Formats: sequence, C-alpha cells, structure tokens
Amino acid sequence: MTTKVFGHKSPDTDSTGSPIIWAWYLNEVKGIDAKPCLLGEPNTEAAFVLEHFGLDKPEIISGVDAGEKVVIVDTNNPAELPADINAADITAIIDHHKLVGGLETKGPIDITIRPLACTATIIHDLIGEDLAKAPTGIKGAMLACILSDTLEFRSPTTTDHDRAVCEKLAADLGISINDLATKMFEAKSDVSEFSEAELLRMDSKEYTVGSTGLRVSVLETTAPKVLLDRKDALMAAMPAVAKEDDADEVLLFIIDILNEEATLLVPNDTVKQIAEASFGCSVSGDTVVLPGIMSRKKQIIPNLKA
Amino acid sequence: MTTKVFGHKSPDTDSTGSPIIWAWYLNEVKGIDAKPCLLGEPNTEAAFVLEHFGLDKPEIISGVDAGEKVVIVDTNNPAELPADINAADITAIIDHHKLVGGLETKGPIDITIRPLACTATIIHDLIGEDLAKAPTGIKGAMLACILSDTLEFRSPTTTDHDRAVCEKLAADLGISINDLATKMFEAKSDVSEFSEAELLRMDSKEYTVGSTGLRVSVLETTAPKVLLDRKDALMAAMPAVAKEDDADEVLLFIIDILNEEATLLVPNDTVKQIAEASFGCSVSGDTVVLPGIMSRKKQIIPNLKA
Repeated sequence: MTTKVFGHKSPDTDSTGSPIIWAWYLNEVKGIDAKPCLLGEPNTEAAFVLEHFGLDKPEIISGVDAGEKVVIVDTNNPAELPADINAADITAIIDHHKLVGGLETKGPIDITIRPLACTATIIHDLIGEDLAKAPTGIKGAMLACILSDTLEFRSPTTTDHDRAVCEKLAADLGISINDLATKMFEAKSDVSEFSEAELLRMDSKEYTVGSTGLRVSVLETTAPKVLLDRKDALMAAMPAVAKEDDADEVLLFIIDILNEEATLLVPNDTVKQIAEASFGCSVSGDTVVLPGIMSRKKQIIPNLKA
Repeated sequence: MTTKVFGHKSPDTDSTGSPIIWAWYLNEVKGIDAKPCLLGEPNTEAAFVLEHFGLDKPEIISGVDAGEKVVIVDTNNPAELPADINAADITAIIDHHKLVGGLETKGPIDITIRPLACTATIIHDLIGEDLAKAPTGIKGAMLACILSDTLEFRSPTTTDHDRAVCEKLAADLGISINDLATKMFEAKSDVSEFSEAELLRMDSKEYTVGSTGLRVSVLETTAPKVLLDRKDALMAAMPAVAKEDDADEVLLFIIDILNEEATLLVPNDTVKQIAEASFGCSVSGDTVVLPGIMSRKKQIIPNLKA
C-alpha cells in the first residue's frame, strides 16, 4: 500500500516541499512505497520552488480512503486536514506547531514535533547522514522551505539551527541564499491573479479571542503597495468571507518582508479595539502599521486580546 | 527555574527510571537544571531497581505549580497526570503510547513519541553518544526500564531495537540480562503488602467498550498462585473499586510472565460475555486462562468487545 505524505490545506512552500522530501526519504532510503500529495493548489511561492528545482507538482487530493496509510507533516490540526482524516491509518506526524489534539491514531505511532521554524528542518535532522544521497531538487526544496518559513531569517521564529541547516545546504548546492529568497518572495508577492476572497483565505488560521471568532490572515510580501492598493476591495470582501467561514471578523496582516513590519487593515470598530488592546497601538485610519511584527505564531496570536 | 521530570501516576519501573535518566541528561549534558519526580509510590519492582542501582528515590509530588516547567515521560494522557497539569509550562513530552489529546502547551514544544516498547529506549536514542558520559546507575536504570516493559523480551510490544539497546547496555555494564530480569520480576511479584483494592488499581487503565466503562487492570507476576489464592477477595473488592472509580466493571488480568499466559478473573456474567466476545474463549468457572496474552496495549485493549 502506498503511503501518502501531505501537509495542510492551502499549501505554502513548507507544506509542498516537506511532503516531497519525506516521500523521497521513505522511498529511496527506508524502502517504503510513498508519494507526496497536496491538499490544494500550492501558493505562488511554492509553485515557483517546484519549477525552479525541476520537481513534479504532487497530486492534489481532497480526502483520504478509510484505512489508507498517511504521514502528516507541517500540521497536527484536524481543521487544516481532510474532514475524514481520522478514517486513515496515520503512521507518522512531523510538525513544528503547538499540539492541538483531535487526530486519532490506532496505536502508538512516530510523532516528532520540535519548536523549530520549519518542518523541513526537523526532517533534515530525522534524515541525518542519508541526506547525502538526496538529489539536488530534494536538498533545494529543503533549503527553500526553511527560507520561506523564516522569511530569510527575519522571522522571530528562526532558530540558530534553522539558519545553520540553510547555510550548510546552500554551501553544498552552491546556491546564494539571498538570490533564492529574493526570487521566492517575488513569486509569493505576485498575487495579481487572486480575488480578494482568495487573498483573505490564502494563509489564514481560525482563532477565538474572548467570544469573538477570528480568521487571522497574513500575506507575506515584498510589494505591500500592490496589496494596499486593493485595501478597499479587501475590506469590502471581509464580511462575506467571515460569514461563510463562521467567523465574526477577518484580521488581515500585510507583512512587509523587507521592511520587517505588518500593516493591519481596520475595517470597523471591533477590529480597531482588538488592534489597540493587542498591540498597544493607536488606530486613527483604516490601517495601522505594526513595526517588527512578522510572525503570526510568535507575535500575533499570543498577543491577541478582545 | 528547576524543570520537573515525571511519568504517570502509579509509577512502574519505566515511569520511575525514565525521569531519573532524562533529568540526568538535562542536568549533566544540556546544562538545564532538572529533577526527577514521582506521582506516587513506585511499585515494588521500581523500588528494587532504585535500590539495586543505588539511585535516590525521587520526591513524590501530587500536583504542579502554575507556570512551573515540566517534562512528561511515559504518558500523554491527562487522566494519568495531576489534575492541574495544564497550568504547568510543559516543555517536552517523550512517550510510547497512542496520542490521546488533552495536554495543552503554550506553543510548539519538543514531542517525541515512538512505537517502541519503552520510553527509556526512546530516551536512549535521544541522548545518543552522550550516554557514554552516564554513570552506571543511569545506564542500569535504562536497562531495567526496557526489561520491565518488554517482560524480558516476552511481550509482543518488544521491537528489535528495544532488544538491541538492552543487549548493548548489558554488555557495557557486564550485567546478565536474565539475572537482573529474574530479580526484578521477583520484586514485582511480591505484592503481599497490598490490599485487594490496591492490587486492582496498581497497573490499571480506563477503557470504554460499547457503553460499559471498564477498569482494565493487569498484574505481571512470576508467582500467579499467590494472586490466584486471593481470587475470591479480589473479586469481592471489585464492585467497590468500580463504583469509586466511576467504572462499570473491573477486568483483572493476572499475567504469568514465565508461562506467557494471562488469567482473567470472571466475577459475573457481564465480564463473562466480554471475555467470550473478546478472546473467543469459553468461560465455565470464575477464571479463564488466555494463552499467549501478555500485553494490555497490543493484545487486550484492541480485542475488547461488548
């Protein structure tokens, strides 16, 4: 039976690359028949990384079969996985997020969660010396995943170990980290083809603060102006997205990668109050700039207050 | 701040030894101030292991302080931990059981779960080459934990890796595996000081089959006759234990380590029906012998049927 390896819905670079890397390892090193899959179209950065390193785009699946063997990477949250995930035979979980609960396994399985910036860094450590056998595309995907999740080491989630693994891979491959990261972030910033509703859901997590259900969305970009030019349309799209997704409000943070700051859109008084209570800022217009805010996991979610 | 390292309530050898080993590693290798603790009196086998290897009995604690740093080993089940566990700052979990859910962490932490027979085997792998620095008592505790959880390799939970680690440790220490295991199992079999109610709760897990809440208890022994001689008193104690613990029935399996079989006590028709449905046996008296049944995790729980 083939083991399917996949990450979360709305796959970013880590949830696209890590399944490819781990499936390579299972097939070529462990002798376990495995294939990478995606739970949706990869984002523009992930699509660039696939093409740049000559990797096939994994099959997109929308559910799992009962009893099917699966490995889950880059999430342990059932809300980010197919609704029928617990019907599968989950054989391993590799992740770098807070333990949420809700995944069911038939017995004890391999679970490796580490407080690192990126799943691919954990996979690097699990593969160990066998990484020497990996082709360029696999090592390149690993490097790209870590650069993506760390925003080229700008994100406060970055650990010394994530950085050291990147530098080792880049030296091995003869790749300039800054060149690759620049191309990746340009690809991520090219969002011209997406509707406002798609942008609001592209990199989004559900979170409840007090009694308010939030969709906390981020868009990491090197071209914030392109998004800010669509500010009115984005705010106009929020009520319908919130309603469809059973949330009260959408918080959209436009993360300016190069200037290391976030701009939060403030469509109404509820969001204004949340912004002021959470970030100690004073909001006068329909946006507020939050200097140094780069990470939803480390800086946004832990600070959210009603 | 000192990090407390502990296993589950009613500590057996693995939940006594693994905290001692991991706290040694944190203190002596990682430079993290740590101390092992126990969530109750160690069982007679674990007490023997402490004395045999000259290890201090860890402090027994009944709860945790809010914000206190803790590492949990040998369980991920809140029901087997202090009621206030989620008030602590859980910094790592090392375990070999099915993921249950219910533990809450402030952010991403180190979680290592492996389908091996024993937590100490996982700890062996995590420590790696630094184990060479460990004193005899730490290596001895590691060996004892694995012999305990594998019942000297008789349990079907035993993996080749558990066995290989034991054999390496025994060779390193110049210890006869069979001599040590024999003494440990004799200590575990010496249950003369315990009341029937204590015996029914000594190594017990809650499990629901259909609508029937069960306390599934095992007693591993090399002297099953001692326990079977107390059969009537054990069965007489079951209704009160079940009532106090909010269960409908107590299933007590007396595991004969040397003969590799279990004897289930059958106090009533409900247990008789569960036994016949679960193990395909025919019950005529108030006990039934189940040849080859050694492991609650692998052979009892997965087979239980109403």
